[in-house]
Parts: sequence; structure tokens; C-alpha cells
Amino acid sequence: MNRIQLIGQIQQQKSFLCVGLDTDLAKIPKHLQQQPNAIFAFNKAIIDATKDYCVAYKINTAFYESLGLKGWEAMEQTLHYIPNTHFTIADAKRGDIGNTSAQYAKTFFETLPFDAVTVAPYMGEDSVRPFLEYPDKFTIVLGLTSNAGANDFQKLVVRHAQDDLSLVPSIIEPNRETYLYEYLLKKIAGWGTPDNLMFVVGATKARDLAAIRDIIPNNFLLVPGVGAQGGSLEEVAKYGLNKDCGLLVNASRAVIYASQGEDFEAAATKASQEYALEMAGYL
Amino acid sequence: MNRIQLIGQIQQQKSFLCVGLDTDLAKIPKHLQQQPNAIFAFNKAIIDATKDYCVAYKINTAFYESLGLKGWEAMEQTLHYIPNTHFTIADAKRGDIGNTSAQYAKTFFETLPFDAVTVAPYMGEDSVRPFLEYPDKFTIVLGLTSNAGANDFQKLVVRHAQDDLSLVPSIIEPNRETYLYEYLLKKIAGWGTPDNLMFVVGATKARDLAAIRDIIPNNFLLVPGVGAQGGSLEEVAKYGLNKDCGLLVNASRAVIYASQGEDFEAAATKASQEYALEMAGYL
Repeated sequence: MNRIQLIGQIQQQKSFLCVGLDTDLAKIPKHLQQQPNAIFAFNKAIIDATKDYCVAYKINTAFYESLGLKGWEAMEQTLHYIPNTHFTIADAKRGDIGNTSAQYAKTFFETLPFDAVTVAPYMGEDSVRPFLEYPDKFTIVLGLTSNAGANDFQKLVVRHAQDDLSLVPSIIEPNRETYLYEYLLKKIAGWGTPDNLMFVVGATKARDLAAIRDIIPNNFLLVPGVGAQGGSLEEVAKYGLNKDCGLLVNASRAVIYASQGEDFEAAATKASQEYALEMAGYL
Repeated sequence: MNRIQLIGQIQQQKSFLCVGLDTDLAKIPKHLQQQPNAIFAFNKAIIDATKDYCVAYKINTAFYESLGLKGWEAMEQTLHYIPNTHFTIADAKRGDIGNTSAQYAKTFFETLPFDAVTVAPYMGEDSVRPFLEYPDKFTIVLGLTSNAGANDFQKLVVRHAQDDLSLVPSIIEPNRETYLYEYLLKKIAGWGTPDNLMFVVGATKARDLAAIRDIIPNNFLLVPGVGAQGGSLEEVAKYGLNKDCGLLVNASRAVIYASQGEDFEAAATKASQEYALEMAGYL
């Protein structure tokens, strides 16, 4: 799915909700846990219950890998069950030297034909490039994350060493402190375009979105952290929306575990519908 | 395998070689490519050919994931085939918010019972902690990597923002520039001990090893980049060895593709033996 199609879907559904399938066998309803293919059965029901109110699904690969072969099979089945009207994200946070990132790109764009994959930036340009080479696919690079540990490194103040200043002088403005994540967003934005590059920006840092929008006005942002992690949708919309919408707001636990009883489907419908109604108001 | 056992193996084998199983179906010998389980057949042969000259095997998960279910099956089979005298590393470069990192830790320490997994640091402490909680398992965090992109962010000069200076003032020494990777090594070293924490330090930056050893004198370092990526084993040993050895030097392509013909096993034996002989001289 390309950017124009994604924007069209958002306009049609009047929603920029992404439902996160962080499916944990220990947390799904008891009556499903004993089924032979419980993870897929749960995901299937959640997709059916929420597809009218969201535009994207995000599969958190960790929850599937931890089950080994059966987990990968459930991930594959889930991906193929998602309607092709919906944008699909592998939340995998991969990234390695070039020849290895090329293998990860193959994994999540060919073997498992997702529309997008999340990528960790620490290893720099050649670790991100192989993902960007796929047409009509999106690389979603970590910018500012929603967890407590985001403060450990992402908010360090950075500058080039003296002998490197000539390399990219325009990124660091004189007399202004630049955070690592800001530097990174600006630098990485130059490696792609809004047609193949998005960024992860945690919702618990909604006020930082205004500064982030100055750096990357046109890229879509994938915003986790609404719901279970405590981020405010209103603030995210206020500071993050751009002319194309430009946001995919993810809710995982708040939707898929809205109820852990036999009424989990109705509860997931209600939770996703509430998000969508609020989102329609902001669009 | 714990640290004492690993040191014992290094002393016994007189080698600190790790063989990297970055097994690519397109690069293995033609006569194996048509076999139904070609990846495992190749790995089995490579393990038999090299086990007398190395102390560890590193499985690069990307090369297996890109094959989907069959790849994960081959990874599982390969892991179980590695003799339990040898240290096993999942080179997976995972890292996410706490509840997700816990799933990745389960994947690589339980579902696939590796001794160690590589972890990306960008998301901070709560993304690393879940890995450290496993006894007798190792978390290998990216420090300074061997690729060109390492210069994009890892060598930025960092400091705390003014209002954060009180948090960890001792890490930044006055009047001295601190690189992001140095800051990160020092900070992360405090989250674990040499008994559960190692770092990735690229061999192409061997001279930086002296400075790195000042920061983390006792942790093992996993050093990729010798061989195909152009790092010098002599320099790595000179600057990186500590009293316990403290090094695992990885060679992947230079060993497993030493020959791509029918003599690949003999060529892999020869290549690994040459590394081991050189290493014995440095120990």
C-alpha cells in the first residue's frame, strides 16, 4: 500500500487507528487458550471486531517469535487474514549491517509481505538503506520512544566532534541544544521521503510532537503509547496532525484486552469505535 | 554456559574464535543447494569442520527469518546440533519496551536456548533489563559497530542537558569529549556485571579498543568485522585482550565461504585453524 492509498483509507474510515496485535497466550480469553491454534483464532476474532474502526494492524513480532515455529505460523496466518484495505506493520525493530538488514527487509517485505517494518537506528545509514529500497513499502524508524528508557540516550544533547563539523553542519543550529532523537530524525529524513519513511514517536511525549513536526513536517508518525502506556490522544492529535493526517496512532492492550472474558470481541469493537469517534472529531 | 566455563573453554581450545553462521542459500555450495534441508545440512558440515578451532557459534537470525518457517526450523536444528561445549549466540539485535523485550528474552533464552543474544541499546534501560534477568545467560549490547554507518550516530559527542546533569554526573568528565558509544558503554555496564553482560565492538575500529577497555575492563567483547569486513586480528588482540581473555572474535564469511566448492569443509577447517593458531599466539 502506498502513501496516497493510506491517506485515502484514513479519509474513508475517518480513523487513524492502528490496532496492535501483541497477542499473549496468557492474556487471551480462557475459552480460547485451549484451542490448537489459539493465537490465530484470537487475532481473527479481533480483526473481525475492529476492522471497521481502524486503518492499520501492527503485529509485534516478539510475541510470536517467543512461541517458536507455531508462533511464526500464527504470524503468517494473521498477516494473510488482514484485509488488503488495511495497512500492515511488522513491529520488529530490526537493524544490522547492510547485508544483514537486506535479509530482514526480505523477511518483512517479501517472505511476510507487510507494508511496513519498524527499524532501530543505532547502526546508521547502511543499516536502514536496504529497507528503503522497496517500492511502496515503508520503513518506520525509531525516533522518540514511549518508554521510561527513552530518556537514557534519546534525550542526550549531541554535537559533532570538531573534526567532523564539516560533514553536516546545517543540522546543528548554533546556540541551540539538539537532542539525539532530533538529530537522528533530521538526518534519517534525508535518507528517504515521506513515501517510504515514517518515524516512531511515543505518545507519552505528546508535547515534543510540536518540535518534531518542525523537523519532519510531512512524514507519517507511528504513535504507540496511547492507552495502556498512558498517552493522550487529544494531545497527539493537537501537536501531531498534518495536512494529510500524518498519524497512525496505535493501541494494543487497550483494545485487544478490553475484556478478557467471553465478550472480548464486543469489548474490542467498543474500544476501537471509541478511538475512531474521537479521531473523526480531530480529522 | 557461565563466564567461568567460557573462560575454561577458551583456555582449553587455545582459541577465542566465534564462527558466524550467516548462512545464505545463494552462497552455499551448489551440490548442497538442492537438498530439502540445505541450510541445516551446510551448518552441520561447517560445525563438524570447525568445532575443534572455535569456542562459539553465532547464528545471524536475519538469514533464517528471511526463509520463513523453514528458516526458523533450520535455526532450531542448528542450535541443537552445536556441541554443548560451545557458547551459542543469537545475533538478533533485538530491543523494545519492557514487556516486549521480555518476550524476546524468552525467545532466545527459553524457546531457543541460546547462551547469549545481541541487543540494540537505543530504547534504554527497560529495553535491556529483561534480558539481564536470566541467570547464566548473556546480553550482548551494541557498543561500537563495524559498519560505515557507525559514524552516523555512535560517534556523536554527547552531554546531558543542563537540567539533567544531576542524574549521572560522574559519567561525563569535565573538559573531555564523550562519544555516544562511550557514554552508552559506561552507563549500560552499570546495569549488569561481566557475568551477564558483554558488548559488541567492531574490529574495524581496533584502535578504539584501548579507550573502550578503560571504560569496561572486565566485560567480554564480541568483535565482528575480522575477515570479510577488513578488521585486523592482531590489533584486536593487542588492544582488546584482558586477564580472562575477554574477547570473542567472530568470523563469518571468511570461514563458512572460504570455499564455495565441494571442498568447503576442508577450507572452513583450514580457515578456522589459521585463526586459532594466530589466537593461541596472543593468549
